[in-house]
Amino acid sequence: MKATLIYGPHDIRFENVPDPQIKLPTDAIVRVVASCVCGSDLWPYRGVTPTSEPHPIGHEFVGVVEEVGSEVSKVKRGDFVIAPFAISDGTCAHCRNGITTSCAHGGWWGSSGADGFPTDGGQAEALRVPLADGTLFPLTGQADAALIPSLLTLSDVMGTGHHVALSARVKQGDRVVVVGDGAVGLCAVLAAKRLGANQIIAMSRHPQRQALARDFGATDIITERGEEGAERVRELTRGVGADAVLECVGTKESMQQAFDAARPGGRVGFVGVPHGGPEAPISQMFYSNIGLAGGAAPARVYMPDLLPDVLEGRIEPGRVFDLELPLSQVADAYSAMDERRAIKVLLRP
Amino acid sequence: MKATLIYGPHDIRFENVPDPQIKLPTDAIVRVVASCVCGSDLWPYRGVTPTSEPHPIGHEFVGVVEEVGSEVSKVKRGDFVIAPFAISDGTCAHCRNGITTSCAHGGWWGSSGADGFPTDGGQAEALRVPLADGTLFPLTGQADAALIPSLLTLSDVMGTGHHVALSARVKQGDRVVVVGDGAVGLCAVLAAKRLGANQIIAMSRHPQRQALARDFGATDIITERGEEGAERVRELTRGVGADAVLECVGTKESMQQAFDAARPGGRVGFVGVPHGGPEAPISQMFYSNIGLAGGAAPARVYMPDLLPDVLEGRIEPGRVFDLELPLSQVADAYSAMDERRAIKVLLRP
Repeated sequence: MKATLIYGPHDIRFENVPDPQIKLPTDAIVRVVASCVCGSDLWPYRGVTPTSEPHPIGHEFVGVVEEVGSEVSKVKRGDFVIAPFAISDGTCAHCRNGITTSCAHGGWWGSSGADGFPTDGGQAEALRVPLADGTLFPLTGQADAALIPSLLTLSDVMGTGHHVALSARVKQGDRVVVVGDGAVGLCAVLAAKRLGANQIIAMSRHPQRQALARDFGATDIITERGEEGAERVRELTRGVGADAVLECVGTKESMQQAFDAARPGGRVGFVGVPHGGPEAPISQMFYSNIGLAGGAAPARVYMPDLLPDVLEGRIEPGRVFDLELPLSQVADAYSAMDERRAIKVLLRP
Repeated sequence: MKATLIYGPHDIRFENVPDPQIKLPTDAIVRVVASCVCGSDLWPYRGVTPTSEPHPIGHEFVGVVEEVGSEVSKVKRGDFVIAPFAISDGTCAHCRNGITTSCAHGGWWGSSGADGFPTDGGQAEALRVPLADGTLFPLTGQADAALIPSLLTLSDVMGTGHHVALSARVKQGDRVVVVGDGAVGLCAVLAAKRLGANQIIAMSRHPQRQALARDFGATDIITERGEEGAERVRELTRGVGADAVLECVGTKESMQQAFDAARPGGRVGFVGVPHGGPEAPISQMFYSNIGLAGGAAPARVYMPDLLPDVLEGRIEPGRVFDLELPLSQVADAYSAMDERRAIKVLLRP
């Protein structure tokens, strides 16, 4: 079968690899139905994080279970499953605390693996899933084809948008600012709306993304940045600032933008992967009592909560996919996202 | 009358100053019954923050109202009042959001003042209180003499201990670590206990402070610091880490200690005044989903909530005062705290 490997900056290859096999009794084999490219995949693609040797890549996928190990009891052959971007057992203390991304026995796709075997990547025709009972979320019955893009977002971007909104403790009636108009920022708009925010100010300069943000629930769009952007937020919030700010970029500038948009006593949520970029302005936090929380989203934990809204059409996060390609053209998917020609690219084997 | 002024490092003087006068119709004049020295007063005392010119000092006091301006309606001559460490109008958007320390018209004791007049300091025989209706909290009737130390802590340290516990969202059944055994750290132990924490681990090497921490509700004492301290926390929390960590020091080391004590998904509260010291370890926050919140405590907001517990003897935060001196010996009070001969010194005119 074929899978995607990254060899180095701008070097994505779709090549023959051995078929996945059950290695431990807690494993499952999943045939991928849809996968995609993540904004965080662009860090190694751009060489911002180094790739020391070629390895499988991709951490978002939905698919059908082909085979399960002898100790797997919660998913079975034929189940349609959603895989979160982190592997987790679902039973350790951290998982029970709801932080599956800190699972004591978990790990990451396309890495050296925590169980003694390298893990596969999600941009593949099929893959081995460790700790299948904890990691995979099975649907009751098969998935409606039209819903597959939205189901796929529960792997990462919609779960991450939900996480940043929860981390900033968005609640009914809040005034919210979303920094970042990528797929996660757009899902954060949707999540803030879903949690009852009254005003949602999206910071975006990109007409297509602005339109989708409005469809997702943004009440205002700000194109200004820096001090001008902060001033616009104050104008739109009666001089007070936002109750909650959702930082969905992960740079020093975007983090500062987020703090400058928050009111005293407000909360900043953050989900952009920090690459030596963002810093927390500790004096500003202290003197304005602005809190900061967030991180790698426990997407697996949120699936039972978000799934009904997807199945019943109340949210359509799959609209963040504005390009679809065959998996064999995965390298084109990376370049389209790198060049911002696409918000997010869906891949089908 | 006499008041305390700071002239520079280690130069505290108790000297004659003009009697305070009503300058604006929203002012009150308060005759001080008790005052004290704060850990944060030690920053200018030690020269860590510069003193460009002599100015009044002290921001914690209780007293009796002597005179009120024509627009003051919530306190009257003869009222026993508690003053928080920040001046606030109680009516602006930030005050209504519960962040009186960010009041749009407020200010700080012993500073240049936000109303066009310099503000007095609390280590004085009497002083002018701006925005008296918002700032002062009047008791019903006079104060029981035995309760004065505890009432005085509502000015700052008990309110700040409560704030750090709320900022870290301490709740029923939590495992909590308190970093710092000064008056605020000890009050944080009391606050965590009051909010229902199940386990309270105090980090202290000082026998007298350890004893008071235990009396206040600490279940465990850790004398180790750094990586050894973090290891002891893990041992005491079944390898998981604390749900909430209360950082009551304000240095780079203490902040890192706090993050190393928190479990994935845990919360760090902080109330130590940052002096270029603490930094937020953003990668650790991201990968472990540990949140950070806190800052200058809105002590005024917490008084109605904390007062009944003081009046009915359920909490005795006044026990943090282990030395009492006449106000005229205020310079000795500073040196006793600077040399850690006293946890906190109460001063009576």
